[in-house]
Amino acid sequence: MLASGRVIPRYTPDELSRLWSPGHRYATWLAVELAACRAMERAGVVPGGTADVVAAKMGDLLERDPGAADEIDRIERTTRHDVIAFLTFVERTVGPEARWLHRGMTSSDVLDSSLAILLREAIDLCMVRHERLLAALAARAREHARTPMIGRSHGIHAEPITFGLALAGHHAELARGLSRLRAARDEIAVGKIAGAVGTYAHLSPAIEADALGSLGLRAETVSTQIVSRDRHATYFAALAGVAGAIERLATNVRHWQRTEVGEAREAFGTGQKGSSAMPHKKNPILSENLCGLARLVRTYAMAAFEDTALWHERDISHSSVERVIGPDATATLAFMIERATALVEGLVVDSERLYRNLESSRGLWASEAVLLLLVDRGVGRQEGYEMVQKHALRAYASGEPLLDLVASDPEICARVPAEELRAAGSLDHALRHVDAILERALGPASSLSPSAAPAGERI
Amino acid sequence: MLASGRVIPRYTPDELSRLWSPGHRYATWLAVELAACRAMERAGVVPGGTADVVAAKMGDLLERDPGAADEIDRIERTTRHDVIAFLTFVERTVGPEARWLHRGMTSSDVLDSSLAILLREAIDLCMVRHERLLAALAARAREHARTPMIGRSHGIHAEPITFGLALAGHHAELARGLSRLRAARDEIAVGKIAGAVGTYAHLSPAIEADALGSLGLRAETVSTQIVSRDRHATYFAALAGVAGAIERLATNVRHWQRTEVGEAREAFGTGQKGSSAMPHKKNPILSENLCGLARLVRTYAMAAFEDTALWHERDISHSSVERVIGPDATATLAFMIERATALVEGLVVDSERLYRNLESSRGLWASEAVLLLLVDRGVGRQEGYEMVQKHALRAYASGEPLLDLVASDPEICARVPAEELRAAGSLDHALRHVDAILERALGPASSLSPSAAPAGERI
Amino acid sequence: MLASGRVIPRYTPDELSRLWSPGHRYATWLAVELAACRAMERAGVVPGGTADVVAAKMGDLLERDPGAADEIDRIERTTRHDVIAFLTFVERTVGPEARWLHRGMTSSDVLDSSLAILLREAIDLCMVRHERLLAALAARAREHARTPMIGRSHGIHAEPITFGLALAGHHAELARGLSRLRAARDEIAVGKIAGAVGTYAHLSPAIEADALGSLGLRAETVSTQIVSRDRHATYFAALAGVAGAIERLATNVRHWQRTEVGEAREAFGTGQKGSSAMPHKKNPILSENLCGLARLVRTYAMAAFEDTALWHERDISHSSVERVIGPDATATLAFMIERATALVEGLVVDSERLYRNLESSRGLWASEAVLLLLVDRGVGRQEGYEMVQKHALRAYASGEPLLDLVASDPEICARVPAEELRAAGSLDHALRHVDAILERALGPASSLSPSAAPAGERI
Amino acid sequence: MLASGRVIPRYTPDELSRLWSPGHRYATWLAVELAACRAMERAGVVPGGTADVVAAKMGDLLERDPGAADEIDRIERTTRHDVIAFLTFVERTVGPEARWLHRGMTSSDVLDSSLAILLREAIDLCMVRHERLLAALAARAREHARTPMIGRSHGIHAEPITFGLALAGHHAELARGLSRLRAARDEIAVGKIAGAVGTYAHLSPAIEADALGSLGLRAETVSTQIVSRDRHATYFAALAGVAGAIERLATNVRHWQRTEVGEAREAFGTGQKGSSAMPHKKNPILSENLCGLARLVRTYAMAAFEDTALWHERDISHSSVERVIGPDATATLAFMIERATALVEGLVVDSERLYRNLESSRGLWASEAVLLLLVDRGVGRQEGYEMVQKHALRAYASGEPLLDLVASDPEICARVPAEELRAAGSLDHALRHVDAILERALGPASSLSPSAAPAGERI
Repeated sequence: MLASGRVIPRYTPDELSRLWSPGHRYATWLAVELAACRAMERAGVVPGGTADVVAAKMGDLLERDPGAADEIDRIERTTRHDVIAFLTFVERTVGPEARWLHRGMTSSDVLDSSLAILLREAIDLCMVRHERLLAALAARAREHARTPMIGRSHGIHAEPITFGLALAGHHAELARGLSRLRAARDEIAVGKIAGAVGTYAHLSPAIEADALGSLGLRAETVSTQIVSRDRHATYFAALAGVAGAIERLATNVRHWQRTEVGEAREAFGTGQKGSSAMPHKKNPILSENLCGLARLVRTYAMAAFEDTALWHERDISHSSVERVIGPDATATLAFMIERATALVEGLVVDSERLYRNLESSRGLWASEAVLLLLVDRGVGRQEGYEMVQKHALRAYASGEPLLDLVASDPEICARVPAEELRAAGSLDHALRHVDAILERALGPASSLSPSAAPAGERI
Repeated sequence: MLASGRVIPRYTPDELSRLWSPGHRYATWLAVELAACRAMERAGVVPGGTADVVAAKMGDLLERDPGAADEIDRIERTTRHDVIAFLTFVERTVGPEARWLHRGMTSSDVLDSSLAILLREAIDLCMVRHERLLAALAARAREHARTPMIGRSHGIHAEPITFGLALAGHHAELARGLSRLRAARDEIAVGKIAGAVGTYAHLSPAIEADALGSLGLRAETVSTQIVSRDRHATYFAALAGVAGAIERLATNVRHWQRTEVGEAREAFGTGQKGSSAMPHKKNPILSENLCGLARLVRTYAMAAFEDTALWHERDISHSSVERVIGPDATATLAFMIERATALVEGLVVDSERLYRNLESSRGLWASEAVLLLLVDRGVGRQEGYEMVQKHALRAYASGEPLLDLVASDPEICARVPAEELRAAGSLDHALRHVDAILERALGPASSLSPSAAPAGERI
Repeated sequence: MLASGRVIPRYTPDELSRLWSPGHRYATWLAVELAACRAMERAGVVPGGTADVVAAKMGDLLERDPGAADEIDRIERTTRHDVIAFLTFVERTVGPEARWLHRGMTSSDVLDSSLAILLREAIDLCMVRHERLLAALAARAREHARTPMIGRSHGIHAEPITFGLALAGHHAELARGLSRLRAARDEIAVGKIAGAVGTYAHLSPAIEADALGSLGLRAETVSTQIVSRDRHATYFAALAGVAGAIERLATNVRHWQRTEVGEAREAFGTGQKGSSAMPHKKNPILSENLCGLARLVRTYAMAAFEDTALWHERDISHSSVERVIGPDATATLAFMIERATALVEGLVVDSERLYRNLESSRGLWASEAVLLLLVDRGVGRQEGYEMVQKHALRAYASGEPLLDLVASDPEICARVPAEELRAAGSLDHALRHVDAILERALGPASSLSPSAAPAGERI
Repeated sequence: MLASGRVIPRYTPDELSRLWSPGHRYATWLAVELAACRAMERAGVVPGGTADVVAAKMGDLLERDPGAADEIDRIERTTRHDVIAFLTFVERTVGPEARWLHRGMTSSDVLDSSLAILLREAIDLCMVRHERLLAALAARAREHARTPMIGRSHGIHAEPITFGLALAGHHAELARGLSRLRAARDEIAVGKIAGAVGTYAHLSPAIEADALGSLGLRAETVSTQIVSRDRHATYFAALAGVAGAIERLATNVRHWQRTEVGEAREAFGTGQKGSSAMPHKKNPILSENLCGLARLVRTYAMAAFEDTALWHERDISHSSVERVIGPDATATLAFMIERATALVEGLVVDSERLYRNLESSRGLWASEAVLLLLVDRGVGRQEGYEMVQKHALRAYASGEPLLDLVASDPEICARVPAEELRAAGSLDHALRHVDAILERALGPASSLSPSAAPAGERI
C-alpha cells in the first residue's frame, strides 16, 4: 500500500511508514467517527448500538485490506472530497446504520481530530527513540567523564575539558529538546467535534467533550471550522529544534573525525566502502547525512508557520502542506534520532589522540591562569593581558611551551613565584568541577566510570 | 546615540529603542560584571568592597553619556574585541580596582548573561502589550457576542457564527501565544559564569549560582563557552508564532474590510488619505502592514534555528545574527502587538452589513440542517446529500431561498413536515452554544453586552 | 518500484514519478559511465569496444526490471555506498569488461552528472507544462480583453480594469518565470568527470569534455569533488519563483470566487461535493491547494541555499536534502503547473457579476479624474484632493453616485463644466490603453476576441 | 539623519548608509516625479517648463537638509500616507506649479520606479566590491597555483590539490554569483508610470516609456498598481546566492585556520585580542561573522518570496518587508563582500604546514592509483578495491606508508612492477592538470606565480 504522505523509504523507520499508511489513516478516521457516534448515542441523539454495528461490520478492514484504501481513492476521484469518499465507502460496506455517522459533523471534525491522534502517535515514536538517544549519550558521557580533551572555541584550542563533558552538553541540549517534544505533544492533543464553523449547530460542547475524551484528546478552546494551526506550527518548530540539536552533535562528530583531529569517529562496518575512487577513505557519512536532514526538518517548520494565517473560518491551503510535512517531518526526525543513537553508541573514541591533541599546544591553554596570577599580584587586567599575550603569540608560532617562556620573563617572575606559574598548567585543577557538572546534567555520579585517560595521565 | 542593533524607527516602540541602545547594553554588561564580582567577594576570591568601588565610580555613566559608548567603540577598532574594549574603558575610568572584574571569566559569561537579561526585558515589553491586546479582543468579542455573521470556509458562505465568536477565536489563539511567550521567557532566563569553556577553571558552580541568582537568572545546565543556542531558537520561534497569530487576525480584517464585504474596517483618521491618486480610498493599511511584518519575524526565527549547530565549544557565527534579530524581532513584534491593539480597539464594525451579508444567500446555510432531518427519517447520508445538493446548487445559482425549494420537493416533504424544514433556518438554534464558547474562551459571561444585531433580528 | 525520492502520488504527475524512479536513476548512472568509458576509449585509455559490450549486456535491464534496483539496494546495505553497490551489480551482470568502467572516476562524477541530467529532464517536464499554462492564460486573457472589471488595491475598489488585463498580468509574470526556468536549466546542465578532488589525476579535461558533450552537458569550471551547489540553489530558487507566481494567480481566483465577489470560479465537476456537512458549498479548493504547495516549493529552496557551503572539497550533507527536494520540488511544481492550467482553462467567468460589482460603487472610481480636472483648472493638488475626498467619503458611506455629488458642489461647478464632470466616468476612456497592454504582453492582437461585457456595456 | 531603513552601522558600508538615507530616498522620488513631469510636458499634457521650475526651487534641499525629511515625516503622521506627505511638502516649498506633479499617477508609480533605482544603485555598489573580491581571489589563486595541499572530502584526506586550485573554485563560484547579480540588476531595472491600476487611465504608454527611459528604466510589461514582486524576489535570491558563496569561502577559512590544520589564517592586527579570558587566542572571527551574516541574507530572500502573492491589483503587505530588507540585505551583502575581500587579501598561507599535512598520511592518497594499476592488469574493480582497501585501512591505523605495504604484498607485486607502484605517489603526476584548470577559471596563465611550495618540494 502506498503511503498517504510521501515517506521516503530510505529515511523512514518502518513504524512511521505504517503510521502514515492510508490504511492506518482511514482506520483513525473511523475511530473518530465511532467515538463521536458513541457520544451521540449517550446523548440520545443517535440510536443506541449504532457504533457497535458499524464497528462490527467494518472490523479491521481498513488497516488489513489495501483494496479498501484504493476503493476510497477511486470514489474520491468523483466526489473530489476525501471524507465524503470515505463515508460513501463505509455506507456501502455497512448499510443503513452508517447514515448516523458524521451526524452534524464537518469533515474537519474527523480530519483534525485524526491528525491530532496521528501526530501524537508520531511524536510518541520520536520520543521513545529520543529516550534511547539520551541514554546512549549519558552512558558515553559517563564513560569519558575524565577523558581529557582540549576545548575549542572558533576551532582554536582554548582550555581543557573532557570528552564526557562535551557529550554531557549535547545530552543537556537534547534533554531540553525532549521537554519541548513533550510540550508539543500536549499542544497537539486537541481535537474538535464542533461542526461546520465551530458553533455546535447540530452538536453540543458536551458531546464533543465526551467523544474527544474517549480518544484522549481535549477540545479546541474556540474552533473555527478547524483546530487552530498555531498548534501545528509549534509542533513542527519543536521537531526543528530537536533536529538542530542533533545537527550540532553531528557537526561535532564531523570535526572530531577529520584526519588532523582524529579524536573520535563513526564505527566503520565490515564490507563498508568509503569511496568509489579511494579505497583508504573512512568518512563521517552518518553525521553528514544528519546535518542535511536537519535542514529539511527546519524548512518544514517554516511551511507550518506559513500555514497559520488561514482565511475566515478556514481555507484548505494548509492541507497539502500537512499531507507532506506531517509524514516527512516526523519520519525524518524519528530516523535522525535512531541514526544519532547508533552514531553515539558506536562512536570510536581515541583517548590517546585526544590527549596528544591537548598536549600539542604545549600548555598554551594556561595563558589565562598566568594572567590571573598577575592580576592577583596587582597588575592591571589589560596590562597583564599584554604581558602574557606577547609570550602566547610567540609560543603559538614557535611551539615552545608557554610556561617556559613566562617563567623566564623577569618582569613576570618578579611578581609570581615560578612554582605557581608551573602549577597553572595542572589538568587536575582545571577539570576539578567536571564531575559536578556531569552530575547536574546526568544525575548522581554513582555510575561514573574510571577515567579513559592514557595511563599515567589520570586527572 | 545610535542603536547597537538596527531598530528601524518606523517599526520600533520607544521603549524597545532604549532597551537596545548601546548605553543600556553596556550598562547591562556592567551589571553582570558587578554581580559576578560581588559573588566572588562573598566567596573570598576577590577583595570585599571592590564592586562597590567600581559601581560608585561608574555611576550611570554608560546609560547617561553617549560618549561612553562611542569611546568603547573606538577602543574596539583596535582590539577587535568588544568585551575587551569595554573592560579597557572601565579600567580607565575606575582605576586599579577594575582589574578584579571579569576574574576567571570569558567574554561570553558577560555577553550571554546580558543577552538573557535583554531578551527577557524585551519579551516583558512584548507581554505587557500583549495583555492589552487580549483585553481589547475580549472586550470587542463580548460586545459582539451576539452580532450574527455568516461563517465562511474557503471564502464561501458556510453557516452562521457571530462576530464576537470570530474575535474570541483570535483571542484564544493569541492567549496561547502569550503562554508561549511566557515559556520562552523562562527558557531564555539562563546565564553562565563558567569561564572559557564552561569548566569553572578559575570559578565555581557556587559563584555562578550566586551571581546569576542576584540577576534573576538560572545557570546553564552544561555550558560550552556559551549558553546553548537551542534556547534562543525557541525564543525566536515563540515570537514568530505570535506574529503568525496577529497575521491571521490582520488577514481577516483585510477580508472584512474589502468593498464587497464591508463588515468591519480600520478606523480612518481625520486628515488621513488613502491614495495619492484616488481620493475615495479607505484601505486596511494597518492590517496589510502587520501581514508584512509577520513575514519578517518568521524569517528571523529561521536564522535563529540555523544558529544552533555551532562548532565545538562555540564559534561566533551566531553573534552577527543576534545583533540584528535580537533588536529587530523583539522591536517588530512589540510594534505589531501595539498596532494590532489599536486596530482591534478602533475596528468599526458594521452590524447591519454583517446581517445583510448573512441574509444574502437566502438561507442556503440551512442545507446541513435539512440533510440531518432527512437522515433522521431514515434516508441514507449520501442519498440525502444529493437530494439537498440539487436544490442548494439551484438556489445558489438563482438566488431563490433554499427552504422554499426544499419545501416544494414532494420527495422531501413526504418525509419531513414543512414546519420542521422552516425551523431549520433558525439563527437562535444555530447560535445557541455561542455564549458557552465565549465563556470558555474569555471567562464568565457576566459582562456579555447586549446584542449588536439590528433591531428585530436579535438572536 | 518504489521511487528513489519520495514523490507523493497525490501531487506527482506520472512522468515525474517515472523520472525519479530508482530504475531510471540507475539507467542514467549507466549512461554516464558509458559516456565516460567511450570518451576514454577514444582517448586510448580503455580498450575500444568496452562500452559496447557493457551496453549490450546491460540492455534496458535497469529500467525494465525492478528486481535490479532491489538487488543494488541489497548490496548497498553492506557497502553503505550507493555507487559501489551499483558498480558491483554491473560487474556481476557484465563480467570482466566492467572493470574498465569508472576508471579514474569518483562517485560524484557519476552522481552529479546524472543529477544534472535528471534535473534537466525534470525542468523540461515543467517547461512543457508551463507553455500550456501560458497558452491557456493568453487565450482567456484575449477572451476577456474587454470584459470590464473593477480594479482593486488593498481589496478596495480602485479604478476599472478588464478581466483580460488581470489575466495578462499573471501571464507576464509567469512568462518571466519561464525565462527563469530556462536560465536554471542552463545553469544546471553541468557535469564533471574530474576524479576524486577535481584534478583529473587519472583523467583529463579532454576526456571530460568529450564524455559530457555526448550527454549534452558542459564541464564545471572548477570542480571540487562535486559540481558546485550554488547551481542547484539557483535551480530550486527558480522553481520557488514559479510557484510564487502560481500562488498569486491562485490567491486571486480565491478572491474572485468568494461569495460576495463571485466574479469567477473554479469549474465544479459532476458528482463533486464541496463539504461533508453542507451540500450547498462550492469551494475554490484547487486554488487553495496551489497556495499550500507553493509554500512547500519555497521552503525547498531554503534547504537548497543551506546546501551550498559544503566543507573543503565536499561533504555529503547536501545528498539527503537533494534526495528529497530533487523529486519533491520538481514533481510538486510540475503538478502545480498542470493544476493551474486546468484551473485557468476551466475558470467560469461571470461577466454580469463583474459588471455589477464595478457599478456597485456608483462611479466612486472616477474620483481621480475629477481631481485632475480641478488641477487642470489651477486648483492645488492637495486642495483639490480635499475637495473631492469630502464627496467621495460621503458617496462611500451613503451609496450616492459620486458624480451627482460633485456636480452639485458649486465650488467645483464654478471651475469644471458639468459635462466634463460626467465624462469623467467613461469606461471607454478609462480602458482605452488596455488593448495596447495586452498586445505588449501577449503579442499581436489579431486574435482578440469580441468583448465579453454584458450587451450594451461594450467598452 | 536617521536611515529610512534600518542599516545597522556595524555591518553597513558608508556608501550604503547614504544610499538608504531618507534624504536620498526623497531625492529619488523627486527625480521620478520630474522625469514623469518632463515626459508629460513633451506630450503636451502639462505646461512646458513646469519641471524646470520645480527642480530649481527644490534644488538639492532633500539630500542636503535633514530637516526636510523630518518635516515630511511630520506631515505623514496626519495623512498616514508617505507619498502624499512628500507631495504636500513639495507643494508648500514650490508653490502652484507643483500641482502638475504626479498628474494621473499613483504613489506606486513613484515608489516602485524609485525602488528600482535604489536597488539598482545598491547592487551596483555590491558589484563594484565584488569585482575587487574576484581580483583578490584570482591573485591569491595564482600565487598559490602550485602550492600543494591535501584535498579533503568529508573532512578526511582524499587526494592532492593545490591551495590555488581551492581558491580558484571559490573564484569560479563567486564569478557565477556576479553573473547572477548582473541578471538581477537587469530584472529590477523596471519601473511604472501607469496610474492607479496600471491602465494609463490618465497617462499613456508613450509617456511612461519616455519618463522611465530618461531614468534608465524599462516599463513593466503589465503593471497592476505596482511592479510585479517576482522581480524583487529574484533580486533578493541573487543576493542570497552570493552570500552563500561567501559563506562557503568563510567556512573553509575556518577549517584551514583550526589549530590542528593551521594551513591558512586570517591576518591578526596589532593590538587585536582574541579572547577576554585567553591571551593566546587567534580566532577566525571575520570568517565566522561572514557565516552568520549569510544566514541573514538568506532569510531576507525568504521574506521576499512571500511578498510575491499580493492580492488583486496589489496590497501593501510587501512594503514593510521591503523597508527592512531593501537596506538590510544590500548593506549586509556589500559589507560581506568588502570583508571577504580583506579576508582574502590578508590571508596568511602557511605553505610548510600545507605540505606537512599532505605528507602526514604517508601516501595514503595514492590508493586509487594502485587500484587502477591492478585494474589495468585485469583485476576486477571490486576485487582490486578489496586488495587495496586492506592495506589502506592498516596504513591508516598504523601510520605505515601505504606504498610500502602494497609493495610487499606478493599478490599485488605479481601483477604490478614495484617501480610503477612507487610512481603512483607522484605529486607532479597528480597535479599535472591544475594549471589548465586555473587558466579555464581565471584566464591566461601568464601571470601564474612561481610555486609557493617549500624548497625542494616543487611540483
